[in-house]
Amino acid sequence: MSVGLGDIVQALGGELRGQADCEIHRIASLESARPGEISFIAHARFRTLIASTQASCLIVREDLADEAEQRGAVIVTRDPYLYYARLTRWWVARLRAGREPLALIHPSAVIGAAVQLHPSVRIGAGAVVDDGAVLAEGVQIGAQAHVGEFATLGAGTRLAARVEFGAACRMGERGLVHTGAVIGADGFGFAPFEGRWERIEQLGGVCIGNDVDIGANTCIDRGALDDTLIEDGVKLDNLIQIAHNVRIGAHTAMAGCVGVAGSARIGSGCTFGGAAMILGHLEIGDHVHISAASVVMSSILKPGQYSGVFPIDENGSWEKNAATLRQLHTLRSRLRALEKKINP
Amino acid sequence: MSVGLGDIVQALGGELRGQADCEIHRIASLESARPGEISFIAHARFRTLIASTQASCLIVREDLADEAEQRGAVIVTRDPYLYYARLTRWWVARLRAGREPLALIHPSAVIGAAVQLHPSVRIGAGAVVDDGAVLAEGVQIGAQAHVGEFATLGAGTRLAARVEFGAACRMGERGLVHTGAVIGADGFGFAPFEGRWERIEQLGGVCIGNDVDIGANTCIDRGALDDTLIEDGVKLDNLIQIAHNVRIGAHTAMAGCVGVAGSARIGSGCTFGGAAMILGHLEIGDHVHISAASVVMSSILKPGQYSGVFPIDENGSWEKNAATLRQLHTLRSRLRALEKKINP
Amino acid sequence: MSVGLGDIVQALGGELRGQADCEIHRIASLESARPGEISFIAHARFRTLIASTQASCLIVREDLADEAEQRGAVIVTRDPYLYYARLTRWWVARLRAGREPLALIHPSAVIGAAVQLHPSVRIGAGAVVDDGAVLAEGVQIGAQAHVGEFATLGAGTRLAARVEFGAACRMGERGLVHTGAVIGADGFGFAPFEGRWERIEQLGGVCIGNDVDIGANTCIDRGALDDTLIEDGVKLDNLIQIAHNVRIGAHTAMAGCVGVAGSARIGSGCTFGGAAMILGHLEIGDHVHISAASVVMSSILKPGQYSGVFPIDENGSWEKNAATLRQLHTLRSRLRALEKKINP
Repeated sequence: MSVGLGDIVQALGGELRGQADCEIHRIASLESARPGEISFIAHARFRTLIASTQASCLIVREDLADEAEQRGAVIVTRDPYLYYARLTRWWVARLRAGREPLALIHPSAVIGAAVQLHPSVRIGAGAVVDDGAVLAEGVQIGAQAHVGEFATLGAGTRLAARVEFGAACRMGERGLVHTGAVIGADGFGFAPFEGRWERIEQLGGVCIGNDVDIGANTCIDRGALDDTLIEDGVKLDNLIQIAHNVRIGAHTAMAGCVGVAGSARIGSGCTFGGAAMILGHLEIGDHVHISAASVVMSSILKPGQYSGVFPIDENGSWEKNAATLRQLHTLRSRLRALEKKINP
Repeated sequence: MSVGLGDIVQALGGELRGQADCEIHRIASLESARPGEISFIAHARFRTLIASTQASCLIVREDLADEAEQRGAVIVTRDPYLYYARLTRWWVARLRAGREPLALIHPSAVIGAAVQLHPSVRIGAGAVVDDGAVLAEGVQIGAQAHVGEFATLGAGTRLAARVEFGAACRMGERGLVHTGAVIGADGFGFAPFEGRWERIEQLGGVCIGNDVDIGANTCIDRGALDDTLIEDGVKLDNLIQIAHNVRIGAHTAMAGCVGVAGSARIGSGCTFGGAAMILGHLEIGDHVHISAASVVMSSILKPGQYSGVFPIDENGSWEKNAATLRQLHTLRSRLRALEKKINP
Repeated sequence: MSVGLGDIVQALGGELRGQADCEIHRIASLESARPGEISFIAHARFRTLIASTQASCLIVREDLADEAEQRGAVIVTRDPYLYYARLTRWWVARLRAGREPLALIHPSAVIGAAVQLHPSVRIGAGAVVDDGAVLAEGVQIGAQAHVGEFATLGAGTRLAARVEFGAACRMGERGLVHTGAVIGADGFGFAPFEGRWERIEQLGGVCIGNDVDIGANTCIDRGALDDTLIEDGVKLDNLIQIAHNVRIGAHTAMAGCVGVAGSARIGSGCTFGGAAMILGHLEIGDHVHISAASVVMSSILKPGQYSGVFPIDENGSWEKNAATLRQLHTLRSRLRALEKKINP
């Protein structure tokens, strides 16, 4: 596919300095771009790459426009990273529009009774949709995905191949669930009895808002009695575990390998670095940012950035410091004793 | 579905104080319960909610019975949480009993040669059962699940959709494996040779006892030579990694994202908080409890609770303390020097 | 299956001391071996087991050969662990050779248009291969696996059941991908805009070299613009997350639950213990070894072993030391003040 710079600016705005009929056939990173490709400068720290990139057009902010223009076309915009995001979506939409329409419902798919399918729904090979499921306009179900009975998916939501979307779970519009994600497995609930565990059937569901993205092999368990809740605009990366009864507020984002234990309530506009762990039955307020690999063991209500990671070190140094750490409390007492002696 | 309080007590015991014909149509949490619903008080700290809940019936201990009875029906029992667990199971069994029987073996399922299927076995759409597998009475295989050749599943065990149950692996009775779990992938075994890794074929299997629950996308690798062993009553949450040759003792429970490295031997009656990590070739005794996100680097034989997590803090404070941590060993030496000077 | 010791030595080398016609029917661990089985001694620390093992033959180094020979046959080799690795592969190859050939392409598999299949390719039940995919000689696709359009798999590469191998992704020869792995899901890329996240379409692919093993439920995301790169001989265990634009150098190995954030560049010959976490946009040089559960927060270029784990302790001790840790920076200041007073 190839598009003119004029087409891009017409669709996405921005000020074009250069020839509208310059043809672009790929969006590229600064380092790998070749003639005929478009790239962008998201941060001032990439300024040094302006001279060397071979991109035919650069998306830049006003303050870098003159410099960038000396070497070729530019599109000037307030937020080049956002412009790039929108360019990728526009690009993919054009790519898809130029293709033959996919089979709407693959003959190998298994569709249950009383399923409500909008005529525009696409269902891939080997997918299984159980009785009573409701799939709205433009829903796409990937190959071998499974939609449980009475589940509902809002307009434009897409399940990739091999997604599990459990019985009676609900998801809003424009969502995207990646391969292997499991929505609506049982929460981990057992009552202890005489040294054994008695299973508690999980009777709630999972309720997911609009514009939610869920990564590959991520799990969101159904609630014990009420629903697990994922609000609008939440973004979850791969291999995340969301336990039963959790609530995640709107537009919160979590990087890969995060775990959230049961009944935690997380506010909106939060971010979680990779492998952050959130213990159960606690509350995290709005606009709290947890660094990667940090463990939240009690509620955090005040907005801010929080961290808790043992600093990595050469193994020998780490061993010494880690061993001493076990005596830290004693060291403090010894320090105190000295202080008393010297400043009595 | 709706049941009378009298039916509940007749099935599950407990002392009913209230009308036996009071109809209940949902089990609910204290906060969300409405009239016609039943809830429970598992801990004294929820006592404050007795006055405000709208539940028609509360399951309580003797000491809260009088207070709870002032607002409606109560079921008095020694362990309300256990009662709730059993109520959920009885409830779900009744729900299922009232439904049309599911197709026993879906026509799209692929069944190999010499498979032994009890007549009561149910197999979902698109599932694949390889040659020589043995499925006992009441076994249920979910949609798109895969049972490898010569695998055996005991009576009443259920695989959810898209479970992988590998060749020659064995699981006992009344088990439940959630979607996406992978039982019997190859253990991670390689011999180093001239800077490369030579694969070691994994010749063992996975042997799982009775009453074991395995969470979504959890992996249990087959043993290198002998079997990986999961004893009776073990409960594993989602996204857990159990490496080859591991042994997990009876009734041990692990929360989500736990990892257990190769050849670790874990006792019975243990608990592991979420994301706890257990290194390989070590031993954990019975009744050892590992806190969430803690890392076990050597054997622990003494029962008790063990923890090891860097405390989370505001980022600025963490940075200062983490940086100082790298000097901890030196700080101890400096403290010692001072002590010698002052107490010579 | 049963083989003579002479057959083993003829195929794999080593010096046999014992009868060539001694029949072996299983490879076993030292502890579980019985007569008619072969085992190996990989480390001197297992020397104490020589007397008690019932194995009919032991694979040993020269220095243990005399001792081992006193109790039965031995195969003497420079690296018994490597010999064992090769023995397992030779063993499995013989096992497979003795079996009936599997159906080449299962009738329930769904094969798209313009797919290039070498005549030797095997495709399991319910697998889906999309348009334009290229499968070279000896490729095996497991049951219910999905190969996206224009994906390419090199000679001898095997996908286990239910693997996702995404559109336009490429993998070299002799690779092995375990069940549930997801190659080529979208990278986690969003541009912030007015408190929400705008999705960035991920236009790159995943490019994987030869002799790569990928564990169960592991995820490797496609690049944002360029490809995510996994070089020759890389070994990845289960439940690993490799984010977009990551590069992993040749013969690097990662244990289970490792996470690598976006755009990290990792050298060759590195090892990562289980649950190690690598933050994004950093560089790790060749021959760097990261201990289990350690977090890499900035580039490490110098070869060596690096660690960073809070030492686990009995809960009470941990609580005291962890609480004091939050004052560590202050403790250092207090120590300094004392030092100044005493050594002015």
